[in-house]
Amino acid sequence: MSLTAAEAAKLAQGTLRGDAGLKLQGAAPLEKAGPSDLAFLADPSFAGAAAASKAGCLLAPAGSEELLAAFKGTVVFTKNPKYAFMLALRRFEADLRPAPERGRHPTAVIYPSAKIGADSHVGPGAVVEEGAYIAPGASIGAQCYIGRNARVGMGSRLYPGVKVMDACEIGSGCIIHAGTVIGSDGYGYVSPRGRHEKIPQIGKVVVEDDVEIGANCAIDRAALEVTLIGAGTKIDNLVHVAHNVRIGRNCLIMAQAAIAGSTEVGDNAIIGGQAGISDHVKIGENSAVMAGTGIMSDLAPGQVVFGHIGRPRLQAMKIEALLSKLPEMHRALSKIKKQLGI
Amino acid sequence: MSLTAAEAAKLAQGTLRGDAGLKLQGAAPLEKAGPSDLAFLADPSFAGAAAASKAGCLLAPAGSEELLAAFKGTVVFTKNPKYAFMLALRRFEADLRPAPERGRHPTAVIYPSAKIGADSHVGPGAVVEEGAYIAPGASIGAQCYIGRNARVGMGSRLYPGVKVMDACEIGSGCIIHAGTVIGSDGYGYVSPRGRHEKIPQIGKVVVEDDVEIGANCAIDRAALEVTLIGAGTKIDNLVHVAHNVRIGRNCLIMAQAAIAGSTEVGDNAIIGGQAGISDHVKIGENSAVMAGTGIMSDLAPGQVVFGHIGRPRLQAMKIEALLSKLPEMHRALSKIKKQLGI
Amino acid sequence: MSLTAAEAAKLAQGTLRGDAGLKLQGAAPLEKAGPSDLAFLADPSFAGAAAASKAGCLLAPAGSEELLAAFKGTVVFTKNPKYAFMLALRRFEADLRPAPERGRHPTAVIYPSAKIGADSHVGPGAVVEEGAYIAPGASIGAQCYIGRNARVGMGSRLYPGVKVMDACEIGSGCIIHAGTVIGSDGYGYVSPRGRHEKIPQIGKVVVEDDVEIGANCAIDRAALEVTLIGAGTKIDNLVHVAHNVRIGRNCLIMAQAAIAGSTEVGDNAIIGGQAGISDHVKIGENSAVMAGTGIMSDLAPGQVVFGHIGRPRLQAMKIEALLSKLPEMHRALSKIKKQLGI
Repeated sequence: MSLTAAEAAKLAQGTLRGDAGLKLQGAAPLEKAGPSDLAFLADPSFAGAAAASKAGCLLAPAGSEELLAAFKGTVVFTKNPKYAFMLALRRFEADLRPAPERGRHPTAVIYPSAKIGADSHVGPGAVVEEGAYIAPGASIGAQCYIGRNARVGMGSRLYPGVKVMDACEIGSGCIIHAGTVIGSDGYGYVSPRGRHEKIPQIGKVVVEDDVEIGANCAIDRAALEVTLIGAGTKIDNLVHVAHNVRIGRNCLIMAQAAIAGSTEVGDNAIIGGQAGISDHVKIGENSAVMAGTGIMSDLAPGQVVFGHIGRPRLQAMKIEALLSKLPEMHRALSKIKKQLGI
Repeated sequence: MSLTAAEAAKLAQGTLRGDAGLKLQGAAPLEKAGPSDLAFLADPSFAGAAAASKAGCLLAPAGSEELLAAFKGTVVFTKNPKYAFMLALRRFEADLRPAPERGRHPTAVIYPSAKIGADSHVGPGAVVEEGAYIAPGASIGAQCYIGRNARVGMGSRLYPGVKVMDACEIGSGCIIHAGTVIGSDGYGYVSPRGRHEKIPQIGKVVVEDDVEIGANCAIDRAALEVTLIGAGTKIDNLVHVAHNVRIGRNCLIMAQAAIAGSTEVGDNAIIGGQAGISDHVKIGENSAVMAGTGIMSDLAPGQVVFGHIGRPRLQAMKIEALLSKLPEMHRALSKIKKQLGI
Repeated sequence: MSLTAAEAAKLAQGTLRGDAGLKLQGAAPLEKAGPSDLAFLADPSFAGAAAASKAGCLLAPAGSEELLAAFKGTVVFTKNPKYAFMLALRRFEADLRPAPERGRHPTAVIYPSAKIGADSHVGPGAVVEEGAYIAPGASIGAQCYIGRNARVGMGSRLYPGVKVMDACEIGSGCIIHAGTVIGSDGYGYVSPRGRHEKIPQIGKVVVEDDVEIGANCAIDRAALEVTLIGAGTKIDNLVHVAHNVRIGRNCLIMAQAAIAGSTEVGDNAIIGGQAGISDHVKIGENSAVMAGTGIMSDLAPGQVVFGHIGRPRLQAMKIEALLSKLPEMHRALSKIKKQLGI
């Protein structure tokens, strides 16, 4: 694991000041970085702290050359230091956390009619059922389960213990973390005589390209058609997505959020941690549902909402502030009523 | 996968109008169904939309014959179209999502004293420990774990990766979705000197007949006795049930709900998604705790409650409405105080 | 499984009254215990109920001798009956729920450079990757996954299906329940052009000694450094811990709590069930965040907070009480405004 300062400058499309041959062994936050670490300064207003950093090499905003005059180490000046840092991390990652090697582990159980693409990995104890398709370059981690006629796209990586149930489809370039279940049955019953009788769930889940899904999530298959996770959407840990939900592209859905049945979430929406969205609701594109917020009705595009029942953010914050004054308001009212003889 | 319109009429105990021999290949919502699909109309007031449907065969309410005069396809008039649709789905499901085949996969690890009933399935990589009992017709999915002396009842189906820990009991006709853990230790400590010392959890979990449990749930064993899930209860994904909890019959417990230790939930109760119920509380039968609601004390039978701290639904909705008026109330109070010289 | 009353008295460092040779076969709550059961009375004020108990042997507070004069069974008087009961339960547990036997199951997949300590257990279907280290006496349950260069400390017990991802470290004496994932990637993206690009997560998780973690939790690895769970901390089921979080020692973190990125939780803090804590926040030591509470900013040590947005407990309870009076307050205000002609 090593990257020279010159290579970092090239990744950053930046200008190097200092030792181009410096070998970087790791990456660290500014205040903890040592002489063989790469660090970054996102905002010139923290240049003072950066000047005191012991980082061997600093990625800094173009234009901060003078502010960093006191910094002893090597600096790469670049348009977007955080982005350049991310690119450098990818280089370190390839060494630190290499992808599993190609091939099928002998303990994997692959049913005869399953098709396994070239250059893919099927880990120990994984099960790939009849009719399943693993595309070239995909990685099916140890102890994963790929159901009948399920599909995993090119280059997608499933960490250990992921279950993709029958007929579900994972696109290309996806990452699914350990323990997540794609395609559990939707929650649907008819109860004509008090007993709950199960409505068969014969739909599927379609996860489009470049989606990442965290650990121990549960995404239910549709009753009849498709539960959809749009391309580029990123889902955190322990998230629940119910049947028939349609999530747009490039959404961010944070830990422990829950989205109830048949709800639609527009492109680029952000759903905060532990937020809960009722069934059959439409969340407009580019909207943001803040952490812990409950949504019971449609939300227009571009809204930012907060609260146990979501309200526009500023209104919700105003109400929260006034709640602290509620005891005072109550006392004032009592006094007024007394004075007016009410 | 095929069902004739005549067979659909028989399942529905209904009256057929049109082509009795029509072969149905699938099922779909009214507005998306095509000429070889079955669809249903739950409510005669949507008969206009139904008339425009391209569905090959429609299940419609008895009495809606005239309203559907314009509908070109075949119709089955029946008392409960949704229920009839569900029965038809079961037929499609048997083809689309057949149960695993009988027998023990050679990679399953079955300890010598475990008993495996006739016509059951034990999938690849499953582990069945000493003294465990799998009843006839049960299906233990790939990579499941059945602990020592645990029991799985007749015809129950465990999806891949379910763990039934030692001594726990699953009734007949149950369905448990992938990744769920039945019988993790309850959360109990004594801390006489600041350090938390574990109280051994030597009880078990008993899941009665016809229970369905979603994906990636966690149901803890009792400290001494039994954590109970009553017959016919249906639990959604990512639900937490703590030790010593007793859930009644035919309850509905939705995604990400949490029920703390020793709480009792009465028959036919509904616990909404992300609801949280404190420990040692009694939830009366036929009550409904709405989504996101917190319950800190007993709830009488038949109540419907909502809110961060649950209140009767109408009161909670009234309070929510008034919260929007809080800024206006605060301004009015200031004005009044000024006018009265307070 | 058997313990004599004399042995119970010895464990309790207490004084025995009655039959020293009585054989106890189990443990039960006071009101349900039978003649061969051990039970305990925590508080002398319930001595009346205890006197009516059919328990064979009762652990009771020293000083309650006279209050229990009517109790027919054997009694052990001791300083801390609950603690003594816990010690007795450990004896029963050793019989009822013995630890897995030593050795590696032949179906476990152990890569050549992994090191497996003496007297440890590696269960069926477990996978231990290159460079991993399992310390002496550790127990790796069936179907567990131990990633590359991961470490599990002495005597720690991992229940079935736990995943410890690459480079993560579990201390000594830890217990991790089924299905939990340690070391999934943190949730981090840069989105300079609208698309979310993944920031590699090259840090790890360090779980210190004597930590217990419930079932189906997800604990993310740090972006660069360490996500830390301090010694003696106990975590319940379905908890989310994000990247870079630092949790102190002897904390209690209850079911479905979520702690967002880079947040620090001080020693001995209690985080209630379904509580949600924002990113980059500091929770002071000895503080308590009650169930369902949301925390968006730092919390001083020793605070007890409650509410959708956490406030000091008494204030939050006062506000909750006044919310019930909000309709009445609104009516009074209308009346006053009318009377004053506003």
